[in-house]
Amino acid sequence: MGNKQKTAITPTREENYPEWYQQVIKAADMAQNSPVRGCMVIKPWGWAIWENIQKHLDRMFKETGHVNAYFPLFIPLSYLQKEADHVEGFAKECAVVTHHRLEAGPDGKLRPAGELEEPLIIRPTSETIIGEMYAKWVQSYRDLPILINQWANVVRWEMRPRIFLRTAEFLWQEGHTAHATEEEAKIETMKMLDLYTDFAHNYMAIPAVKGEKSEAERFPGAVATYSIEAMMQDRKALQAGTSHFLGQNFARASQIKFLSEQGKEEYAWTTSWGVSTRLIGGLIMTHSDDNGLIVPPRLAPLHVVILPVLHKDENREKVMEYCETLLKAIKAKTYDGEPIRAELDTRDMQGGEKAWSWVKKGVPVTVEIGPKEVESGSAYVGRRDQDRKERRGMAREEFLNRIDEILTDIQKGMLAKATSFRDENTVKIDSKDDFLSFFTPKNPDQPEIHGGFAYAHWCGEKVLEEELAKDYGVSIRNIPFDVSGEEGKCIFTGKKSAQRVLFAKSY
Amino acid sequence: MGNKQKTAITPTREENYPEWYQQVIKAADMAQNSPVRGCMVIKPWGWAIWENIQKHLDRMFKETGHVNAYFPLFIPLSYLQKEADHVEGFAKECAVVTHHRLEAGPDGKLRPAGELEEPLIIRPTSETIIGEMYAKWVQSYRDLPILINQWANVVRWEMRPRIFLRTAEFLWQEGHTAHATEEEAKIETMKMLDLYTDFAHNYMAIPAVKGEKSEAERFPGAVATYSIEAMMQDRKALQAGTSHFLGQNFARASQIKFLSEQGKEEYAWTTSWGVSTRLIGGLIMTHSDDNGLIVPPRLAPLHVVILPVLHKDENREKVMEYCETLLKAIKAKTYDGEPIRAELDTRDMQGGEKAWSWVKKGVPVTVEIGPKEVESGSAYVGRRDQDRKERRGMAREEFLNRIDEILTDIQKGMLAKATSFRDENTVKIDSKDDFLSFFTPKNPDQPEIHGGFAYAHWCGEKVLEEELAKDYGVSIRNIPFDVSGEEGKCIFTGKKSAQRVLFAKSY
Repeated sequence: MGNKQKTAITPTREENYPEWYQQVIKAADMAQNSPVRGCMVIKPWGWAIWENIQKHLDRMFKETGHVNAYFPLFIPLSYLQKEADHVEGFAKECAVVTHHRLEAGPDGKLRPAGELEEPLIIRPTSETIIGEMYAKWVQSYRDLPILINQWANVVRWEMRPRIFLRTAEFLWQEGHTAHATEEEAKIETMKMLDLYTDFAHNYMAIPAVKGEKSEAERFPGAVATYSIEAMMQDRKALQAGTSHFLGQNFARASQIKFLSEQGKEEYAWTTSWGVSTRLIGGLIMTHSDDNGLIVPPRLAPLHVVILPVLHKDENREKVMEYCETLLKAIKAKTYDGEPIRAELDTRDMQGGEKAWSWVKKGVPVTVEIGPKEVESGSAYVGRRDQDRKERRGMAREEFLNRIDEILTDIQKGMLAKATSFRDENTVKIDSKDDFLSFFTPKNPDQPEIHGGFAYAHWCGEKVLEEELAKDYGVSIRNIPFDVSGEEGKCIFTGKKSAQRVLFAKSY
Repeated sequence: MGNKQKTAITPTREENYPEWYQQVIKAADMAQNSPVRGCMVIKPWGWAIWENIQKHLDRMFKETGHVNAYFPLFIPLSYLQKEADHVEGFAKECAVVTHHRLEAGPDGKLRPAGELEEPLIIRPTSETIIGEMYAKWVQSYRDLPILINQWANVVRWEMRPRIFLRTAEFLWQEGHTAHATEEEAKIETMKMLDLYTDFAHNYMAIPAVKGEKSEAERFPGAVATYSIEAMMQDRKALQAGTSHFLGQNFARASQIKFLSEQGKEEYAWTTSWGVSTRLIGGLIMTHSDDNGLIVPPRLAPLHVVILPVLHKDENREKVMEYCETLLKAIKAKTYDGEPIRAELDTRDMQGGEKAWSWVKKGVPVTVEIGPKEVESGSAYVGRRDQDRKERRGMAREEFLNRIDEILTDIQKGMLAKATSFRDENTVKIDSKDDFLSFFTPKNPDQPEIHGGFAYAHWCGEKVLEEELAKDYGVSIRNIPFDVSGEEGKCIFTGKKSAQRVLFAKSY
């Protein structure tokens, strides 16, 4: 092995980034591909992370005045067609229900029967079915705004599925709001983009770049789409949330009309916004290392795992007793306004293997307890964001008093680390040559890890954007808010550019 | 109107029970039928009740050692066929996905394209797809038990849909467990039945009869199905939860095999159990009255609504100030271990209409505040479980100190009332004549409200059961645990009967 340190995940990020990603998920027992094409099974550890994502986002939605509701899984084909760009955008990836029962055929085998008069599409998103309902609910300006969110599964048939990142069925939340004025709808669109940014930063420990999507990347049917873009460890971008200002397009398609305060009949202004289980893929690729997953404490299913270290049977009883008492004491402490989530791992397996299983699952803090710790009233504490060698003994009381501080520190450190990584791999680029060089792998052994975020001037032409995507696999992630105002010249065409845009390869 | 009291819901229960049910849902703004055949839209008030149901059940599942996970929406046709009874049971009501995109046909209209090699069924329940995964996860007895629950949507094509009670798409939880021994699986089956009973009694305020389903009503593929049965106000039964002991049937179908502690290869023993959005229908029909919905406090989206009474504009400021302060004080109090959920209704509408809107929504407690209450430092308190005439003034502090007690009393009273109603309409029947008379409407103006729960002896013959269902619309709801041991003679055939069973008409 020479200088190379043994890692829990094979291959490492440098050796084979895409495969490393799959292996991290496997080692953490988060999810797996199912035998149903393109669909994943989210296993308990992965699901518990999603539950925490849901819990916090749901609270944030409610704090901003939204309520939840639930709309049908099925969308009649005719509804989807009401908005021309919308159906165009989704027609290629729709799961279509055509029959409502099974019957035995002449060969005795079951086959679809009871053909539906109109095929039903499994929702790829719910603007059209929800719009249909809003049209019934809204008569007067007094019925507005409607501020509804839905937690649901959606289906977009994926030809190249990739667990969490792109799956045929995925889970998400989709907010759908309707307003009396354009201004109100625009404020809502931005409010939710800000909420997603806040959530990404403060819960997922993922720094994200806010901006508007270019026309080519706009949600089908939207007037404007805004996104937050995060940088993964292979320096590719991952879209981590979108908020759409839909203007009156969907209101017109679904006939969401209201009588204004002035007694005029008007179309409502609508928005929609969503994040999905894709966020879990982003979490993995932002924070994990060559030993596996690292979960930010605020989203961790468990904050602390206690590992009894039992070399001799004679010590078992007093070690276990000490562990049980410690577990209770930890659970009585709070972090982030909730009792600390802790577990005592009593599984009958070899100690090293057991400890590594939690490293691979990304639990923020482990506490090893052997006869020595019992003797001295201490705890041998390891932090997932530090090397295993840095584990150290702490007096029991000190640990209990500092556990909240340690978790807070880990959460903060993860955001800082991800922010540094992003900043180190973000450049301003002012020529086409530099651009092409930046997005060309330098190391043939690591074709996956290269590039980063490039802020460059662009003339705004859609055809150029499409060429760049086709020829170099680079796209405009968004037109960032934080660099607006600096005029310049397009590095490809020399034409005038209103501001730099964010270029990157992406998921 | 004569002696007839005006009610908020038209028609009343006595006038037209099925229509009353629809009108209660409409008046409470809980849900509505969608334009998608058989599918409902759950509106915010209905959804908030479901969220509370989910929150408590989820906690109870976790407290009994279960974890959540998520499995695909789609089930390949071949999987469904692996268990013969199972596919037989669900073939007639399957939504079938046959295509994965849309394309324009010769007439320019979009039509399904990209036919799938194997049709996919939208899960009507997930035993087969989950079994397929468990087979991959289980190798040794050390991998057992698996104790997983999933919150999901399922689809069973309904020919006669009825909101909440029978809809093509509905939401539910489905627990799926696998065990090394028959005994363990049986204990699990009963544990979950008990958990559902506990939830029905203590949260939904619904008394339920526990028992085993007869063969005819068994879950397709199960060895034994157990249910809890509740009585609605039209005296029909509603199945409010089921728990299935699946034996090794599904383990065999999916090849869930493990190496036992003795080194022998064995099939696992599995269970499944579920409750659905149907519970909301049961809640409505158990508790609501002719003025609308009544929600048990533990599941109520709001516990208390404050209604400012403003006849003159000059009082507005001080009344609103008093209300705001009161709202804060109420929210600082707790009920059922959580802060009290309260709202100040500032909508600009007529006072009576406003108050009645909350009656119809079933909020447990309303507090009216006018200048008189501000003057005397009091609150005019109404309880949804009492007549509007019984509203009364209470000193502000007394109300605040007693709010927890009032809510507890309402919750308790609702269970007591439902239990009395059930007991009053439960009979022992010992002859076929009495049986037929019991299940025949006495009042031609109220064909819907009659009968009840009848405990009678039955010989156990499936064909007899089918005849009773066909001829009289009466079925065996379950074979109750609480009357076991009393032998007798079948009231229809005179043959030997091991115990009385529970007969009723049902939803």
